[in-house]
Amino acid sequence: MLKIAVIGSGAIGGYYGGKLAAAGSDVHFLMRGDLSEARRYGLRIRGPGEDIHISKINCYSSTKEIGPCDLVLIAVKATSNTEILDLVPPLLHEQTTLLTLQNGLGNEEFLAKHFGAQRVLGGLCFVCLTRPSRTKVQRYDYGHIVIGEYGRASQPRTHAVAVEFKSAGVTCSVTEDLALEHWRKLVWNIPFNGLSILAGGADTAAILEDKDLRRATIALMEETIAAANQCGFALTPDVLEEQIKRTETMGKYKPSTLLDWEAGRPLEIEAIWGEPLRRASAAGTQMPRLEIVYALLRALDGARRTS
Amino acid sequence: MLKIAVIGSGAIGGYYGGKLAAAGSDVHFLMRGDLSEARRYGLRIRGPGEDIHISKINCYSSTKEIGPCDLVLIAVKATSNTEILDLVPPLLHEQTTLLTLQNGLGNEEFLAKHFGAQRVLGGLCFVCLTRPSRTKVQRYDYGHIVIGEYGRASQPRTHAVAVEFKSAGVTCSVTEDLALEHWRKLVWNIPFNGLSILAGGADTAAILEDKDLRRATIALMEETIAAANQCGFALTPDVLEEQIKRTETMGKYKPSTLLDWEAGRPLEIEAIWGEPLRRASAAGTQMPRLEIVYALLRALDGARRTS
Repeated sequence: MLKIAVIGSGAIGGYYGGKLAAAGSDVHFLMRGDLSEARRYGLRIRGPGEDIHISKINCYSSTKEIGPCDLVLIAVKATSNTEILDLVPPLLHEQTTLLTLQNGLGNEEFLAKHFGAQRVLGGLCFVCLTRPSRTKVQRYDYGHIVIGEYGRASQPRTHAVAVEFKSAGVTCSVTEDLALEHWRKLVWNIPFNGLSILAGGADTAAILEDKDLRRATIALMEETIAAANQCGFALTPDVLEEQIKRTETMGKYKPSTLLDWEAGRPLEIEAIWGEPLRRASAAGTQMPRLEIVYALLRALDGARRTS
Repeated sequence: MLKIAVIGSGAIGGYYGGKLAAAGSDVHFLMRGDLSEARRYGLRIRGPGEDIHISKINCYSSTKEIGPCDLVLIAVKATSNTEILDLVPPLLHEQTTLLTLQNGLGNEEFLAKHFGAQRVLGGLCFVCLTRPSRTKVQRYDYGHIVIGEYGRASQPRTHAVAVEFKSAGVTCSVTEDLALEHWRKLVWNIPFNGLSILAGGADTAAILEDKDLRRATIALMEETIAAANQCGFALTPDVLEEQIKRTETMGKYKPSTLLDWEAGRPLEIEAIWGEPLRRASAAGTQMPRLEIVYALLRALDGARRTS
């Protein structure tokens, strides 16, 4: 049986780690601020078609106590990547796989640089979650993840990880082109996560109902698709229509970054907006709209943190 | 002696009307909410090199009481243009000149449509003002105005109006191309007024010190200069450098729109951002950055007014 560690006990870590634990996987959570509550109350996951209470979860205040694992789910905010440098080493043995479930671009590269590219898997989470309390995760919609190897085709272990998720009731597919899937997800995250904050707290429905914000959303999507192609990832324009249609069925959904913003948490600005802008620029493409969105988000986030 | 009416007793109307009144011109102010205070305390203007108290000003609660004038200074917010339809007619005789001191594009067109193009002059105010109380105007910097005929070369009356201002100690020049000067001013207003609000209340110094906001400012300026040229107004790129340099000497200046925003007043979104975007679009030019800024400002302003 795979020994699994979960670093980052926010909504994403709680949900996917909790699903695995509930299905009987050998899961070990790093919990810091939440440790005593998690020990006392366990973890509750609720959503359409699921209501799970894991009364006893394995949780620890340091990764040293967890020790070497076969699989590490990394679900801290990308803004906390420097913490990972200290957290990961005690979890490693020769064959440990690191699966980052973090948003945006640059996370696999970060892990590869510090812990070796051969260990690294990336996962994209398509899920609407909130965390009503430290020991509760509420799922509103979706839930599937797409995983892939960093910079190479799928390996037997990629499929083994997918099986682990599927056995726990999580829809999981394996992609042969992780970087392409990152860009596909950015086509959504760049406009919706950004505009929701900059427009003063607009949910997806409000963005799509406002004709100027809707136009800005579509233009940012087009810009992102063009940049992806310039970077060598063949995203076709139908991604746009498909994502707009899907979003229209989501109702008044608040993107995760808006929830972070409203809760006073730092924003994953570089992963979602900064890194795509820099990669496009390196590939010789301007992203004028993204440039404005990026500058404004950085300024808002910076002003809050210095105030 | 010219009989002059001032409509709009905010900072701009108070300053230029007050300067004229202090110099002995025959000035009549429309004051509504501020009437009793203005009657009691008069009007005080302070700034570098000036400290003026006009103890008795001619002020009225309706333009009917003022009656026909030779010159009407229009200094209401562009968002109040529909009020002008009722306010102006009592002030008109055959030869009345309407001088709009309002921001952005579309104000001369509005007056021309309703009162006849031959009456219309436009003026661009280069001045940093605040209004510490209803009867006080504080000038921080500059103060000059540039006036011009709407859609035609200067006339004798254009120069007569300029002389009136100059006699009152206001630096006033006459332009032969008012529309070009509007675009030149927009090169500044579009980025600084817009980003100052969207970045959460950044003054000009904060914008120029932040490398991403500075870059966004310059890109918006370039976009505006290109759009002006596409619309037939030959702005050269040196406008950009000149304006950045000038702004660097202004210190921590809050653009008028940011002051409006902070005071909960409606924003002149269409005049400063919407109309230039539409004119560029009609001339076949995209303004992708302005498109984002416009959509976000409209959303912020709209959310506030419906909340």
